[in-house]
Amino acid sequence: MITTDILIIGAGPTGLFTVFEAGLLKLKCHLIDALPQAGGQCSEIYPKKPIYDIPAYPEILAGDLVARLLEQIKPFEAGYTLGERAETLEKQADGSFIVTTNHGTAHHAKVVVIAGGLGSFEPRKPAIVNIRDYEDKGVAYIIKDPEAYRNKKVVIAGGGDSALDWAIFLADVASEVTLVHRRDEFRGALDSVEKAAELAKLGKIKLLTQAQITALHGHDILSGVVVQHNDREKEDTYLEVDAFIPLFGLSPKLGPIGNWGLDIEKNAIKVNNAKDYQTNIPGVFAIGDVNTYEGKLKLILSGFHEAAVMCQYAYKIIHPNKRYLMKYTTVGGVQGFDGTRKEAKKEVVQSIL
Amino acid sequence: MITTDILIIGAGPTGLFTVFEAGLLKLKCHLIDALPQAGGQCSEIYPKKPIYDIPAYPEILAGDLVARLLEQIKPFEAGYTLGERAETLEKQADGSFIVTTNHGTAHHAKVVVIAGGLGSFEPRKPAIVNIRDYEDKGVAYIIKDPEAYRNKKVVIAGGGDSALDWAIFLADVASEVTLVHRRDEFRGALDSVEKAAELAKLGKIKLLTQAQITALHGHDILSGVVVQHNDREKEDTYLEVDAFIPLFGLSPKLGPIGNWGLDIEKNAIKVNNAKDYQTNIPGVFAIGDVNTYEGKLKLILSGFHEAAVMCQYAYKIIHPNKRYLMKYTTVGGVQGFDGTRKEAKKEVVQSIL
Ligand SMILES: Cc1cc2nc3c(=O)[nH]c(=O)nc-3n(C[C@H](O)[C@H](O)[C@H](O)COP(=O)(O)OP(=O)(O)OC[C@H]3O[C@@H](n4cnc5c(N)ncnc54)[C@H](O)[C@@H]3O)c2cc1C
Ligand SMILES: Cc1cc2nc3c(=O)[nH]c(=O)nc-3n(C[C@H](O)[C@H](O)[C@H](O)COP(=O)(O)OP(=O)(O)OC[C@H]3O[C@@H](n4cnc5c(N)ncnc54)[C@H](O)[C@@H]3O)c2cc1C
Repeated sequence: MITTDILIIGAGPTGLFTVFEAGLLKLKCHLIDALPQAGGQCSEIYPKKPIYDIPAYPEILAGDLVARLLEQIKPFEAGYTLGERAETLEKQADGSFIVTTNHGTAHHAKVVVIAGGLGSFEPRKPAIVNIRDYEDKGVAYIIKDPEAYRNKKVVIAGGGDSALDWAIFLADVASEVTLVHRRDEFRGALDSVEKAAELAKLGKIKLLTQAQITALHGHDILSGVVVQHNDREKEDTYLEVDAFIPLFGLSPKLGPIGNWGLDIEKNAIKVNNAKDYQTNIPGVFAIGDVNTYEGKLKLILSGFHEAAVMCQYAYKIIHPNKRYLMKYTTVGGVQGFDGTRKEAKKEVVQSIL
Repeated sequence: MITTDILIIGAGPTGLFTVFEAGLLKLKCHLIDALPQAGGQCSEIYPKKPIYDIPAYPEILAGDLVARLLEQIKPFEAGYTLGERAETLEKQADGSFIVTTNHGTAHHAKVVVIAGGLGSFEPRKPAIVNIRDYEDKGVAYIIKDPEAYRNKKVVIAGGGDSALDWAIFLADVASEVTLVHRRDEFRGALDSVEKAAELAKLGKIKLLTQAQITALHGHDILSGVVVQHNDREKEDTYLEVDAFIPLFGLSPKLGPIGNWGLDIEKNAIKVNNAKDYQTNIPGVFAIGDVNTYEGKLKLILSGFHEAAVMCQYAYKIIHPNKRYLMKYTTVGGVQGFDGTRKEAKKEVVQSIL
């Protein structure tokens, strides 16, 4: 059982900044995210796009924003359960909560913060009848550890950056890489497309365009796939493979959180924005894109504010008998759980107040 | 008469970021600030102190934060009335407002946003009976244009950075600079103190410590000051001067805003934080340190969020019949009033949504 003060579901920008605000109050955090990396939409959907409305950043790439947030929260040593989806929430007799993931990892905390954004990102699956039978038995929708494919025969399906990038990467790892795509054009970055074409010319990957995988075969574990060509004149091809990896993108789903007894409105969780961003379940807060209230803006900067406010109330739940006096970071400094401290030199304060 | 869409009182971080959020909605802003420069507390009180809780800035000097905000809002070409205090608010028959400063500058707008922080910074004045008679006639509490002192005899009073820095600066401008301070030690940065001591040794400034100015003389305009020494054995000195500049720091005062008929609680303006941060006067909003509501945190990041939300409602007041669809900056770009546009290249969007 993982134990912490504040359990954060969702490691997007909002969840990450919560670690910082909680840290200032000496509250320890643990984050769960269905994705294998932190950063939420910023990392998963548009890491290379500039954002212009992060205050005091005239321009910052979404991926860099996440990197800066990770640097900022480092002193507070949060724990992470990545690549797992928070599945159940159980209230305990003492008012605390246990949250368990789809992999069975259990987390215990007095306060739960849902910073789940648009929901957990779930892979889009191709419509192949028996695909579920082979999940984790040759079929995977996310590549967590490319080493698992060393010297294996791999078929990747898809036409976007993920499919291209992984095909290129696995060319040096797998014994055989086939990239199957329904169209002729790829939707990825130009240099990835060129690189893949070059590797195909060198025979290091096989490109099958205008084609798709329509059937899976294998006894217990996957051993072959059927390729159907758009041009039906051409006969289906059978490929012997160890792994089939359809990379058709991820689509967010509120998912299991929808069944936790929370007030839901239009796929978002209703919170008390006049006060603390708490949900209808006391001790469970919802901040960032996942919540809703009158005038809600799904902006990163709003998630930051909601995190700061929410942590003040979490403190009261976790330490009902202590009083906390807010100090400016410039005055109180930032002290990590490892005891190291960042602080402004006192002399540089101009003495006006 | 200066005319704008949104009139912002206070050019601190909150007021500045409002220009950005309004600009995204194609609303034009004008800012009034009692200080001669933008940045509010960050510029006036602690420009050289690092702040640690600006999201995605593990550390940033308050002065640099202001510089980055100014860069960010540049495309939107806000107007500024600096060095003047907003004095009166008059509601017009059509629901718009006229705000007039202590210098008589009048501003007209449909929406007024008070981002006045702790209030306008007012100079601390020494207790000299007839000092008001000489204000702007030899006595000044803020140096707006040092050239005004060229070849003049100047007495500066104070022991902090402002007094030291201006004494050093004016040494090369004025014909005579005397720095008067009640104590022996100065409260400024070490190198300023050393520099002033050096200039004193070279005879370029005169240091009178353990002393204060107790009387002002002159017919219509200031012509002399009386120096009293802490050691009363010593006789008072009379100095012939053109200018007396007491630099005892600035202290913030809600000031005239307190008389505008707004709901005030503990020196702050009550707003509806459940919705739009509007005050009890429709069309007048209050954001940043100047407002109060349950759980209010006087944090820079909260002012940013309040600005973003408030602008959405200002839009509805200014354009009651238009509908605005919020677009992400990454998608819609940032277009300045001069027509130049910053936008992400479309190709870099990963196509998941
Ligand atoms: C193309 C695009 C451009 C954008 N441009 C801007 C912009 O210019 N400015 C701006 O402010 N915003 C922009 N946004 C929106 C911005 O990205 C979001 O507001 C922000 O990501 C919200 O952060 P969050 O942390 O609340 O949620 P998210 O970033 O969505 O992160 C939520 C995380 O929670 C995880 N999660 C959810 N449910 C579970 C569960 N049950 N178990 C485990 N993990 C779970 C998800 O996997 C995800 O990683 C843009 C969005 C897109 C798609
Ligand atoms: C030493 C110190 C350290 C701090 N550290 C931090 C920190 O680490 N993190 C953090 O988030 N915050 C910190 N703060 C607080 C932070 O500076 C404020 O929250 C922030 O400045 C508020 O911004 P604002 O724009 O709302 O108001 P302000 O910065 O106060 O600006 C308000 C402006 O309005 C002007 N004004 C007011 N009334 C009038 C009028 N009638 N006419 C004309 N102009 C007027 C004032 O002159 C002023 O320039 C700190 C503050 C201090 C003093």
